[in-house]
Amino acid sequence: MEFQSCFPIWDKLSAAQQNSILDSLALRQIKKGTVIHNGSMDCTGLLLVKSGQLRAYILSEEGREVTIYRLFDRDICLFSASCMLRSAQFDITIEAEKDTGLWVIPAEAYRKIMEESAPAANYTNEIMAARFSEVMWLIEQIMWKSMDKRVAAFLLEESAIEGGDRLSITHEAIAKHLGTHREVVTRMLRYLQNEGMVNLSRGTVELLDKNRLTALSDT
Amino acid sequence: MEFQSCFPIWDKLSAAQQNSILDSLALRQIKKGTVIHNGSMDCTGLLLVKSGQLRAYILSEEGREVTIYRLFDRDICLFSASCMLRSAQFDITIEAEKDTGLWVIPAEAYRKIMEESAPAANYTNEIMAARFSEVMWLIEQIMWKSMDKRVAAFLLEESAIEGGDRLSITHEAIAKHLGTHREVVTRMLRYLQNEGMVNLSRGTVELLDKNRLTALSDT
Repeated sequence: MEFQSCFPIWDKLSAAQQNSILDSLALRQIKKGTVIHNGSMDCTGLLLVKSGQLRAYILSEEGREVTIYRLFDRDICLFSASCMLRSAQFDITIEAEKDTGLWVIPAEAYRKIMEESAPAANYTNEIMAARFSEVMWLIEQIMWKSMDKRVAAFLLEESAIEGGDRLSITHEAIAKHLGTHREVVTRMLRYLQNEGMVNLSRGTVELLDKNRLTALSDT
Repeated sequence: MEFQSCFPIWDKLSAAQQNSILDSLALRQIKKGTVIHNGSMDCTGLLLVKSGQLRAYILSEEGREVTIYRLFDRDICLFSASCMLRSAQFDITIEAEKDTGLWVIPAEAYRKIMEESAPAANYTNEIMAARFSEVMWLIEQIMWKSMDKRVAAFLLEESAIEGGDRLSITHEAIAKHLGTHREVVTRMLRYLQNEGMVNLSRGTVELLDKNRLTALSDT
């Protein structure tokens, strides 16, 4: 798989712009668990996921986390280059959830192209609007949904990502995704187990009744 | 005050682009309390506030609200034209908090300009990044801050907006801004009154000790 075929606006760039990307482009292999972007301390650049999985989250001063969005094959990570956008005043941390291969376009190279290319700037707009939509969804979840519904929705999402009903995930990890405490997640999972919707064993959560989990998460 | 002097990228547009804006531009006077944009039902267009105050908020199915951001003189409202952005999948409601004069650039006219003009597309990027920053701040508030701190921060913000320490606002209105119930706000305000930070009377909240309110909201 070539970079060119994964970068949607490639054909809309001039030869000079294409060359400036190819000259500065780097392909990196990231081990699962590596933090590749650390808030406003870094300006890593635009990331294009070749294969793997990234998680973007925010951190509280006390070290609590909440997942903002996740990125999969061919997804673009814009906020690892947020220094390009003067008005972007927030800190997002990005880590590899799986071993990940990704292309890095340095922020300065992309900023220059965006400055002169309407297609590049509009593409950036669309990426940001997509992330904005995910963040608005998250606010709605946090504001209006009780934690049992959020845990059910998270388990279904994980199951869709992993392509299986048996999830290898700790209660602590689920708590970090949802921005809550491990004890709260354990209580919710036990409730779901009592209701026959999941089965818990050490380090795994097995989904037994996806229909009821879906019904619960939709209410 | 002319539209041209309030629209930051005016000088970067071509004469044809400037004319297409002037031809479609409308100046509207909106009464306080009017809902001017209703989620995905409308695609009002890009709004530029001449003078006044707008509030953007989301609504739950049960009719609960939470304020996402506010717009003041010379601010641009992008999401009232979110139909321009295919990837923007969320519903924001916008209402006038004060009598407001605003210019409306129809979404279709702006979209066409954005498509061909890198300065317009990059300007749109900066507006979206600024709103994104406000939304990320809101998530941090909701996730990590207790309601007493959020009420203190809201009162200080209102005081800065209104330019005075005596706020004409109901507990119900504060609850809608913060996405909580009136009873919760009343309890928090009484706590702040017992601590000597505010004084409550019918329909008003008077800030007595801004230093302590600031200290509380910052922790």
